[in-house]
Amino acid sequence: MVFGVAFRIKKRSIMFSVSSEDNQLVQILENPLLSLREKLLKRYKIVRGITEKLCEKLETEDYVIQSMPDVSPAKWHLAHTSWFFETFLLANWDDEYKTPNVLYNFLFNSYYVKVGDRFNRPERGLLSRPTVKEVYAYRKHVDDNMFRFFTEAYDEVLEKYSAVIEIGLNHEQQHQELMLTDIKHVFSQNPLYPSLVKYQANKLKAGKLEWLTINGGLTEFGHNRDGFFYDNEKPLHKRYIENFKVASRLITNGEYLEFMEDDGYKRAELWLSNGFAAVEKNKWNSPLYWYKEERGWYNYTLGGYRKVDINEPVSHVSYYEADAFARWAGARLLTEFEWEEVSKNIELTGNFVETGKFHPSINPDKGLTQMYGDLWEWTMSDYAPYPGYKIPEGAIGEYNGKFMSDQYVLRGGSCATSISHIRNTYRNFFPPDARWQYSGIRLARDME
Amino acid sequence: MVFGVAFRIKKRSIMFSVSSEDNQLVQILENPLLSLREKLLKRYKIVRGITEKLCEKLETEDYVIQSMPDVSPAKWHLAHTSWFFETFLLANWDDEYKTPNVLYNFLFNSYYVKVGDRFNRPERGLLSRPTVKEVYAYRKHVDDNMFRFFTEAYDEVLEKYSAVIEIGLNHEQQHQELMLTDIKHVFSQNPLYPSLVKYQANKLKAGKLEWLTINGGLTEFGHNRDGFFYDNEKPLHKRYIENFKVASRLITNGEYLEFMEDDGYKRAELWLSNGFAAVEKNKWNSPLYWYKEERGWYNYTLGGYRKVDINEPVSHVSYYEADAFARWAGARLLTEFEWEEVSKNIELTGNFVETGKFHPSINPDKGLTQMYGDLWEWTMSDYAPYPGYKIPEGAIGEYNGKFMSDQYVLRGGSCATSISHIRNTYRNFFPPDARWQYSGIRLARDME
Amino acid sequence: MVFGVAFRIKKRSIMFSVSSEDNQLVQILENPLLSLREKLLKRYKIVRGITEKLCEKLETEDYVIQSMPDVSPAKWHLAHTSWFFETFLLANWDDEYKTPNVLYNFLFNSYYVKVGDRFNRPERGLLSRPTVKEVYAYRKHVDDNMFRFFTEAYDEVLEKYSAVIEIGLNHEQQHQELMLTDIKHVFSQNPLYPSLVKYQANKLKAGKLEWLTINGGLTEFGHNRDGFFYDNEKPLHKRYIENFKVASRLITNGEYLEFMEDDGYKRAELWLSNGFAAVEKNKWNSPLYWYKEERGWYNYTLGGYRKVDINEPVSHVSYYEADAFARWAGARLLTEFEWEEVSKNIELTGNFVETGKFHPSINPDKGLTQMYGDLWEWTMSDYAPYPGYKIPEGAIGEYNGKFMSDQYVLRGGSCATSISHIRNTYRNFFPPDARWQYSGIRLARDME
Amino acid sequence: MVFGVAFRIKKRSIMFSVSSEDNQLVQILENPLLSLREKLLKRYKIVRGITEKLCEKLETEDYVIQSMPDVSPAKWHLAHTSWFFETFLLANWDDEYKTPNVLYNFLFNSYYVKVGDRFNRPERGLLSRPTVKEVYAYRKHVDDNMFRFFTEAYDEVLEKYSAVIEIGLNHEQQHQELMLTDIKHVFSQNPLYPSLVKYQANKLKAGKLEWLTINGGLTEFGHNRDGFFYDNEKPLHKRYIENFKVASRLITNGEYLEFMEDDGYKRAELWLSNGFAAVEKNKWNSPLYWYKEERGWYNYTLGGYRKVDINEPVSHVSYYEADAFARWAGARLLTEFEWEEVSKNIELTGNFVETGKFHPSINPDKGLTQMYGDLWEWTMSDYAPYPGYKIPEGAIGEYNGKFMSDQYVLRGGSCATSISHIRNTYRNFFPPDARWQYSGIRLARDME
Repeated sequence: MVFGVAFRIKKRSIMFSVSSEDNQLVQILENPLLSLREKLLKRYKIVRGITEKLCEKLETEDYVIQSMPDVSPAKWHLAHTSWFFETFLLANWDDEYKTPNVLYNFLFNSYYVKVGDRFNRPERGLLSRPTVKEVYAYRKHVDDNMFRFFTEAYDEVLEKYSAVIEIGLNHEQQHQELMLTDIKHVFSQNPLYPSLVKYQANKLKAGKLEWLTINGGLTEFGHNRDGFFYDNEKPLHKRYIENFKVASRLITNGEYLEFMEDDGYKRAELWLSNGFAAVEKNKWNSPLYWYKEERGWYNYTLGGYRKVDINEPVSHVSYYEADAFARWAGARLLTEFEWEEVSKNIELTGNFVETGKFHPSINPDKGLTQMYGDLWEWTMSDYAPYPGYKIPEGAIGEYNGKFMSDQYVLRGGSCATSISHIRNTYRNFFPPDARWQYSGIRLARDME
Repeated sequence: MVFGVAFRIKKRSIMFSVSSEDNQLVQILENPLLSLREKLLKRYKIVRGITEKLCEKLETEDYVIQSMPDVSPAKWHLAHTSWFFETFLLANWDDEYKTPNVLYNFLFNSYYVKVGDRFNRPERGLLSRPTVKEVYAYRKHVDDNMFRFFTEAYDEVLEKYSAVIEIGLNHEQQHQELMLTDIKHVFSQNPLYPSLVKYQANKLKAGKLEWLTINGGLTEFGHNRDGFFYDNEKPLHKRYIENFKVASRLITNGEYLEFMEDDGYKRAELWLSNGFAAVEKNKWNSPLYWYKEERGWYNYTLGGYRKVDINEPVSHVSYYEADAFARWAGARLLTEFEWEEVSKNIELTGNFVETGKFHPSINPDKGLTQMYGDLWEWTMSDYAPYPGYKIPEGAIGEYNGKFMSDQYVLRGGSCATSISHIRNTYRNFFPPDARWQYSGIRLARDME
Repeated sequence: MVFGVAFRIKKRSIMFSVSSEDNQLVQILENPLLSLREKLLKRYKIVRGITEKLCEKLETEDYVIQSMPDVSPAKWHLAHTSWFFETFLLANWDDEYKTPNVLYNFLFNSYYVKVGDRFNRPERGLLSRPTVKEVYAYRKHVDDNMFRFFTEAYDEVLEKYSAVIEIGLNHEQQHQELMLTDIKHVFSQNPLYPSLVKYQANKLKAGKLEWLTINGGLTEFGHNRDGFFYDNEKPLHKRYIENFKVASRLITNGEYLEFMEDDGYKRAELWLSNGFAAVEKNKWNSPLYWYKEERGWYNYTLGGYRKVDINEPVSHVSYYEADAFARWAGARLLTEFEWEEVSKNIELTGNFVETGKFHPSINPDKGLTQMYGDLWEWTMSDYAPYPGYKIPEGAIGEYNGKFMSDQYVLRGGSCATSISHIRNTYRNFFPPDARWQYSGIRLARDME
Repeated sequence: MVFGVAFRIKKRSIMFSVSSEDNQLVQILENPLLSLREKLLKRYKIVRGITEKLCEKLETEDYVIQSMPDVSPAKWHLAHTSWFFETFLLANWDDEYKTPNVLYNFLFNSYYVKVGDRFNRPERGLLSRPTVKEVYAYRKHVDDNMFRFFTEAYDEVLEKYSAVIEIGLNHEQQHQELMLTDIKHVFSQNPLYPSLVKYQANKLKAGKLEWLTINGGLTEFGHNRDGFFYDNEKPLHKRYIENFKVASRLITNGEYLEFMEDDGYKRAELWLSNGFAAVEKNKWNSPLYWYKEERGWYNYTLGGYRKVDINEPVSHVSYYEADAFARWAGARLLTEFEWEEVSKNIELTGNFVETGKFHPSINPDKGLTQMYGDLWEWTMSDYAPYPGYKIPEGAIGEYNGKFMSDQYVLRGGSCATSISHIRNTYRNFFPPDARWQYSGIRLARDME
């Protein structure tokens, strides 16, 4: 198990329908008896299967739409993750490999400049063809060839490509989450408010927010365990941080409503200058997917359109909103290093939130809850290279370094992240005005 | 027959697949033996059927996409035309009438302000639901109720609603054409260039362009026959026009290429000021759907991607391009009244172009060809009310008057227009920079 | 006198400060005893002098600013009108002629493509240099050389250039009006609301609006007298118009307020589709320069910021607003030909409005007032060439033809137009959303 | 002296015309014999005088223009810096104090939300009034009252306001630099290319770029001396940094040209993702103010339009360009803490560059040159609060904290910065696409 304790995905989580597969993934990763070939093949099958299982309730039409430039159509995600294995493994391994359509490389490349021209990202929603059926056939074609690879490749060949497969699987898990958040955005545009999962009402109350003291000092940060990591989690390096206080849980919808009712969105002094400009430009007056009805505030969730639950953690806020809320509350956000330090000091029970929204009292003796798999937590750290960071060679190396500006780091994973994809050194990142991810708020404070 | 001569839709026309139904429509209109009820019911069935037949080759995904704000997804067209009958007939006629979904009125209203709020037009492509299947079910629901109406309505009720049905049928025929041009635009965005119809190569040469003299004077314009007409074709009124000359046929791709090769798109003095601004803003250097390949100019058609045929009439040009071409050629466009006068002076054989592109020698003794059903011909007349025009009462009356600014009139009908929907007083209209319709160029000259 | 009767510019007119010079211009035009040379020289001096006199109250800073792309800085107007004489006369007449700065041709060309590249129009306000002083020196330089021309040129040379001078003087008079409307726009941006002229309160009440019947028929339109005209007023040509009714005076602020209070700006059914889109996009809820204060509606005028006078004619409305008001009032606008026909049927006393805002009872026996020099009257005619119109050769020929799309014709001249520049065949034109000109509303009706 | 050594501003510096006053400022700051009152009064007079002296060569028109939203007109700078003293001192100190115009508070407030509404920043260039003369009168009015304050205020009152005066003086010095960079931008728009200072040709060659090793460790950062500092330089705090290498001088135009000639602007792999998007959107292919002529690359400087000098340090590059150049060179930028560490390790001679462009060999025995007063050096540190940072109370406290997102820190001061305003803990900051400041490139490298 990744953090030494079993995660249990509860019934209200978006990932609940794939929790069995997700748990298998964790077990495979931890199983010392499996060969590399067995591990990779099993994981390949499960990860690829999860992607498709997450789409089970989609109609053909749902796969096609791009509701804003940041969003990609579901069928693009399905094809792009296949293109990854095709391009970085199959085409290299097998000179005879044939793609179903030579234009797919152009259509399903995302930002890998070195691999050739790309179809203009904001226009992904203009493509009715290839059809969803053809995209699934493309997946099958790639899978069949990958299975052939797993069967035929010599051990040294397998080993040579194992890093590519590892990245490909993690890449696909990232796209699983993006696919869910993208579908949520697409559905939210529709007055019919389709739902993807069955809503199970939350019956728990958010506990009192406690302030826990964390000791700083000169310690190490970055990935230092076995297992997969992204280039941006390295090198392991030293940093000095001061002692600080961290909130025991995420901020709830109820607390956020207090901020709103205290004219939070109207008081420029609470905001970063660019943040208030974003408020005015985008006419923000609540988190994304919230709607004011006569009966009160409602929000759209993948479980449908329903009344805002004041006990759930507030989600779909931008960095600017998280920062303004913190200032209003007389607090601040954590740096990503403080977050990582917190994660090192607390033994985690790994209980997972339901619907990624709320879990009231994990590990009550320690006091710290909702660190993993509830919501990505905005930190006040800009996304920058660690000291001594080197951009990896080759096309896959374009992966992370090029995005290291104008973004903020989020930590912890959300209710739409696979368990097996969560770790405490993982650095997610989004621009400060992004709101369509499952992003929430945890507060920190300086020592007095 | 509408113009006294039989139209024959040739094999290269987009409408070829529905030519049999289209000819039936003409015969029904001219059949004096049919009752009003029979006429309306038969026409209703055929028109609604044509709409669906035109979609036969579409994949589900093709129905969903809106490739620019002017374009509507095919499924929107299918639903909106049904909404029309539901709203203006069924809901009035039958107090008990139930729509499948009360939100459809919101989603499928276009610009009928009086009928309620409308879903934002440029966001029609954001809706994956209702699905295509549900939209077809909606059509069936409306059709079933309409058939009930045709069966149950008393004669006087039928008569009362006959005008609404008449408008509804013509409205649907308009949307048939828009649906085709919209699908063409959607497909053109796709590097896979899907085709809708089978291409049949043109083997004919464009004849020599002749100048025919037309006598003007003080004559009458506007609709003055039996049969359906739009409010904008009335009142019948007098105008004085000078004698003038008209070109015997449309301008060909070959002639337009000469203009392009003579730096037509670079010479500001050939253009209206707003026209040249549009050239620079949109980086126009050819008609829409033309692409410069190493092998020469290609264009995308509903029959696929192929080499530009120099004998076909040039299509998909804006008013600005038509005007600039005319200036380059030492000529001008016709006014809409000159066009109507031409149509009155010449006996029409009614031969129809194939693929709406080309017909070399209709009525060679008279010399005038390609007047109907090839391409909509840009006139130099802005779209304005006729003297004494009154906006009709009621929601359907919003129809035409509100668009009477910033647009130019086109006459004649295109290869995507139903025969039964073409007449010589018909006023189509589009903004001067619109290019996604089947719009072409016919020249005129003042007498010396 | 242009219309056979003496105009008297009253004290409230913007042009009042130059009324003496303006009257002299009229007298010179009508004086049969003056030679061509004397006439042109005298007129040149007066017209050039008026331009500068209109700027007398400006501070140096006022000359520099471009408050929107349509507006040009005053110093640009001063320079551009000089550039005209330099380019089209001096540089042709005198091979030795030296411009003060070779870049002036680039900076002060407006849209005469054939004369060379032009400085980007929307960036005219980015130029602090040449300074105002240098621009006046440029004017003097051009004037000195023009005086040399008037002294030295042989009669046949003078005659050869007389058309250019004539156009240059009319061109400068157009820019006098634009300069005033542009300054008004610049000043209106400033919370200090500077004023250019002294406000004299209006004490007259608007008379009752009467409907006068005008007989139509087949008559001639276009310029048919001696004296200067623009290419767009020709050829003289026949048109047929129906009998119609015309309002005896312009619509007042008071009447327009009724429209506003009747939710005129909120009722889509009153508007052209593009008009209502403009209302929404620009958030129009009143004429330009109107501001809602607690004490009621105020407007900014060149005479300062003051309470809206309900007796003055409403000004600074777009075509869309004029059209919507007319529809609300159960009437319509005139066509430009109806307007011209009205002007032919009524003997005009030529009394001029004060401040271009209001004159209650000119020619009360005839009933028709405020036809000239109050406000430009929007007509429902798009700006199009007359039948047989030919674009003149040469650079000056770019003048009018290229603007013949997407604009509407206004007739009559405003309180900022020189008397000597007004005539009943004059066709002014602006896009339908333009509001910064002195544009007003006169209603018409069809006969019942 | 600020850094213990006398700075000598050389003849090619923009600040040369005020070097005598600037040196006086340094001496006053270091003079232990002066009373607080004497110090503040003397400094007030000199700083205010420098602002006006820098404008000596401006024409009235030059004061008015805003060439882009980031730029403010010179007269706005003159007024805003006066408004600062009026608002934060005079209006508080003297109940009877009268501003010349109550609207000035609205017009000349910049972003101090707590002090009231502000005139929209991008529209500062729309104001012709108050005139330049009136603005200078406003300055005099404020100065007269400030002199009265210096004369009349009791010691404890003086002391109470000394912090406000200190901020006001530093604030004015910041605006001196902005005023110069803004004027440069305004002038650069003008094809006449006005110059503000006399150009003196550089005769020195850039020395060889050396790599110096700096030892890191756990050390302190932030302001820790006497004298003024901004809130963002505090608290003094510990950080751990690794050993690293720093370049001995700034990158030259010649070196940057090599990057350009190696297709630096076309190779996506060299750029941050947002950086390459900025290149494409803004069509960057050289630093700001560079123009490709047939004779080679030219640039506009405040000394006029001239050939690019390959020995001068490259200026007017964005963060994105600095970052891409560094990547191309196999290096990186410094963090702001590395920069500060460098500044602590090297004894500075304080020689200043001429025209802020180049100084080849300051302190050659130590090897490090051009650290202060040449160009602001982009660091790879985003602009964020130091650990424990508290936003100061009150309106002046809005000063820095609110800008702490989406910007990068620059260090060192430029040729347009007053000597007395430079210190090694000073944190300047601009968005990564800003280019109109004097910003340059110093490289760093990790230890191997």
